[in-house]
Amino acid sequence: MDLDLARLLARPAETKIVLLVLDGLGGLSHPQTRRTELQTARTPHLNRLAAQSDLGLTVPVAPGVTPGSGPGHLALFGYDPLMFEVGRGVLEAVGIDFALVPEDVAVRGNFCTLARDDAITDRRAGRIATKRAQKLVERLRTIDVGPAIEVFVEPVREHRFVLVLRGPDLDARVSETDPQRLGVAPLRSEPLHPSALATAQAINQFCDGARRQLTDAAPANGLLLRGIAKLPQLPQLEDVWKIQAASAAIYPMYRGLARLAGMTALGRPASFDEQVTALRQHWDAYDYFFVHYKSTDTAGEDGDFDAKVAAIEELDRQLPVLLDLEPDVLGVAGDHATPAILAAHSWHSVPFLLHSPYTRPDPRATFDELSCAHGSLGTFPAAAVMPFLMAHASRLSKYGA
Amino acid sequence: MDLDLARLLARPAETKIVLLVLDGLGGLSHPQTRRTELQTARTPHLNRLAAQSDLGLTVPVAPGVTPGSGPGHLALFGYDPLMFEVGRGVLEAVGIDFALVPEDVAVRGNFCTLARDDAITDRRAGRIATKRAQKLVERLRTIDVGPAIEVFVEPVREHRFVLVLRGPDLDARVSETDPQRLGVAPLRSEPLHPSALATAQAINQFCDGARRQLTDAAPANGLLLRGIAKLPQLPQLEDVWKIQAASAAIYPMYRGLARLAGMTALGRPASFDEQVTALRQHWDAYDYFFVHYKSTDTAGEDGDFDAKVAAIEELDRQLPVLLDLEPDVLGVAGDHATPAILAAHSWHSVPFLLHSPYTRPDPRATFDELSCAHGSLGTFPAAAVMPFLMAHASRLSKYGA
Repeated sequence: MDLDLARLLARPAETKIVLLVLDGLGGLSHPQTRRTELQTARTPHLNRLAAQSDLGLTVPVAPGVTPGSGPGHLALFGYDPLMFEVGRGVLEAVGIDFALVPEDVAVRGNFCTLARDDAITDRRAGRIATKRAQKLVERLRTIDVGPAIEVFVEPVREHRFVLVLRGPDLDARVSETDPQRLGVAPLRSEPLHPSALATAQAINQFCDGARRQLTDAAPANGLLLRGIAKLPQLPQLEDVWKIQAASAAIYPMYRGLARLAGMTALGRPASFDEQVTALRQHWDAYDYFFVHYKSTDTAGEDGDFDAKVAAIEELDRQLPVLLDLEPDVLGVAGDHATPAILAAHSWHSVPFLLHSPYTRPDPRATFDELSCAHGSLGTFPAAAVMPFLMAHASRLSKYGA
Repeated sequence: MDLDLARLLARPAETKIVLLVLDGLGGLSHPQTRRTELQTARTPHLNRLAAQSDLGLTVPVAPGVTPGSGPGHLALFGYDPLMFEVGRGVLEAVGIDFALVPEDVAVRGNFCTLARDDAITDRRAGRIATKRAQKLVERLRTIDVGPAIEVFVEPVREHRFVLVLRGPDLDARVSETDPQRLGVAPLRSEPLHPSALATAQAINQFCDGARRQLTDAAPANGLLLRGIAKLPQLPQLEDVWKIQAASAAIYPMYRGLARLAGMTALGRPASFDEQVTALRQHWDAYDYFFVHYKSTDTAGEDGDFDAKVAAIEELDRQLPVLLDLEPDVLGVAGDHATPAILAAHSWHSVPFLLHSPYTRPDPRATFDELSCAHGSLGTFPAAAVMPFLMAHASRLSKYGA
């Protein structure tokens, strides 16, 4: 739905919406059993829900397009992911609660291992311990890239950190320094637009400074920068849909994505139970709750069919505590498919379930790709999930007389 | 998919894609049996494929819109057929290997029979023999339409020929001379835009010259001109999708359409067997092969339900030689439906089958309209066939982080 139309139709109500995102939901058949991960998993709770819900398949970006986590989530939050882009650097920064301002350029950084001739020998510096990385980040904070530019460096986890450059005339249209392969030196950042010259220079100065600061820090004696981006100007959920929205996500990136859309992060839960507890504690204060479940995607990316099945079953076991909250509308969705046989995100459409008092359930349905393909919602753009949730929550008024 | 997005995501791979287009695929139920042509035909090979494939229904142009062959094929090649138009004159010209240049205006011509008062008595001049038409075309080549304009006339088949006007200031926005009915005289061409005056005059001069040249040539003593058009500037498949694409089509028009998109025509095969042989001979040199099968449409246009069933069965019998090539991705599609009970192209959605290692088959599926309506791909724009084929061929990279 066009966001201007959404602004026109959205109206407040007393209803509660929960969107549960199973990251990488949806897969492909195991070559032996010919059953997908969802078809293989024992999911009594999801299946019971499915038989009482609207089902469908979502297309995150466009037919044939494999989405990253950014576009996959933006679509579920109601944004056309081709209109609104979120750079990886921005994702990482907001995911660690770094308060980005519009002038900032945010960069995703990796420590890496460089040989004597500057050739990269390990793009992740042996996944150094987070504690060690924190020490090295302190050294990086001392690097000077010029009088008008402030430098912030924040550790994320293991070899990963965030670099933020703050200054009046920064422009993120510069090239990355990560060549994405071994045996060559890190690249120099080049301006991709005439007005980005100063930013490329600052990034290169930062890299030169880091090379000096990290000489003795092997295996973390170099760094690679990518995902160089500014904050996207996303219309905020509250303004568009007249809802107070909150997120309960374990991983920083998903909290960060939710915050970009205007959601308040409900603490830093460390388990599904803590996520649900966060919802319960803040149930009265918000209208819409985004709950993120990661392990389905992790198992899929690892190419571990059985682990993905187990992750689905684990979620299913824990589902009742979420259902106990009795939201008026519950959506179960995925940001993209991650079929274990591909060991990667994929372009396939994603199972979707919508539970409310106003659905057209098929009592024979189960929660899997095939049932969803036959579902009452058909195959539809993921950006329509938001208006569906809102409509079922009695939060959209009639269009036209 | 927007072609700019396609350019961004497309990446080379070693995979082979075959798109088999059954012209006019998809029909309507026979009034007695209540089964469509596809449901009536015995198609063991297509049915076996269907049970191992993704199925769906394609919408060639827009809901309710009946496509001509041009838009139907352009959509399957990934173009929005409402953005890119191919005039019939252009189709005919490129289909006989006429090397059109951008300044040319191409026209589809018919010999016709005129009475003494110039009224049309047969719009196809009794379908005169191709040899006879060739002789008459030689006369038409002598017609002078002015100093700055070159005239090319080429026979096509029976009563059909192509007229190409070449000159610096030609503009195809002129009206046709074919009134599309009997008992009236051919029309004068009128400019439909101020800058097309000279072109309309040249066309009328050509018609006047032809009337003189053909006085003694009854039943081919007149001509009708339509499909007046310039070459469309189609982004080429190689530039957009990073593929080398080839066509194996028996009929000139489909070779021509494919050539407009940048496909190399693999000779002039005369049978399905020769088409497959052409693919085999050039298998290593190309990534994408378009194979066109005409007789489904011919039977449909003739309103011959049984002949259409037979055409489908004939294709099914021959399918194994194509499958023996073992393409990584096989699409079976139609450019539009041609239901025998309508004896014409129709607006109905068109069965589509996609076979690859990465599908979500329904083992109970067969290849017909009903199974495709329940298929895992849903109902989708035909222009998405191309990104689907590319994604399944591992030729599209991820969008966003």
